Amino acid sequence: MSMVKQNLFSNIPESFPEEIFETLLENNRFKLERILSSGQATPENDWYDQEKDEWVVLLKGKAGLRFENESEVIELTPGDHLLIPAHKKHRLEWTDEKQKTVWLALHFDS
Amino acid sequence: MSMVKQNLFSNIPESFPEEIFETLLENNRFKLERILSSGQATPENDWYDQEKDEWVVLLKGKAGLRFENESEVIELTPGDHLLIPAHKKHRLEWTDEKQKTVWLALHFDS
Repeated sequence: MSMVKQNLFSNIPESFPEEIFETLLENNRFKLERILSSGQATPENDWYDQEKDEWVVLLKGKAGLRFENESEVIELTPGDHLLIPAHKKHRLEWTDEKQKTVWLALHFDS
Repeated sequence: MSMVKQNLFSNIPESFPEEIFETLLENNRFKLERILSSGQATPENDWYDQEKDEWVVLLKGKAGLRFENESEVIELTPGDHLLIPAHKKHRLEWTDEKQKTVWLALHFDS
């Protein structure tokens, strides 16, 4: 990270088997990440159960996000953002298989 | 901010005389803002001189950013991001007049 500009939509591999998590900024207050998806989903019956609050925005591509005990899958398209409170279990039902999905995620203590 | 999704590219007024700064998240660790521009620039000979570090990303539109004592104007297009250290004087030379420019800015203590 520096005063030299970088681009969130650059340096995206042609293909990747697992989602890619890259730290853009990290200190004792928060961590800012770029996340890349290419069709991955959270394994069946698995849930993310995180220690920290997460603010997340989808910038490119598409994804389906589900919260525990909710039947509806929330479709996220570019610009969509939401706050996932710590320990609110959630999973990615799907991400776009036809194009790369680019996210920003900000993790912080409540 | 909530588990209900919102969209960074929604709720943009048709026209606005001044840039619009909206706080998306704020706590004692950082402030996350959406900034909307529509052709505005920093007034001539004025500089931003901020107490905090600022990470900024341009998501839509275009802008020209200049740092003090640098002749080059840095053109920012969607996805471009950079870190502006506290007290690093900078100004917006221009923002796109033909479309709205949408930014995210994260302000935090060094």
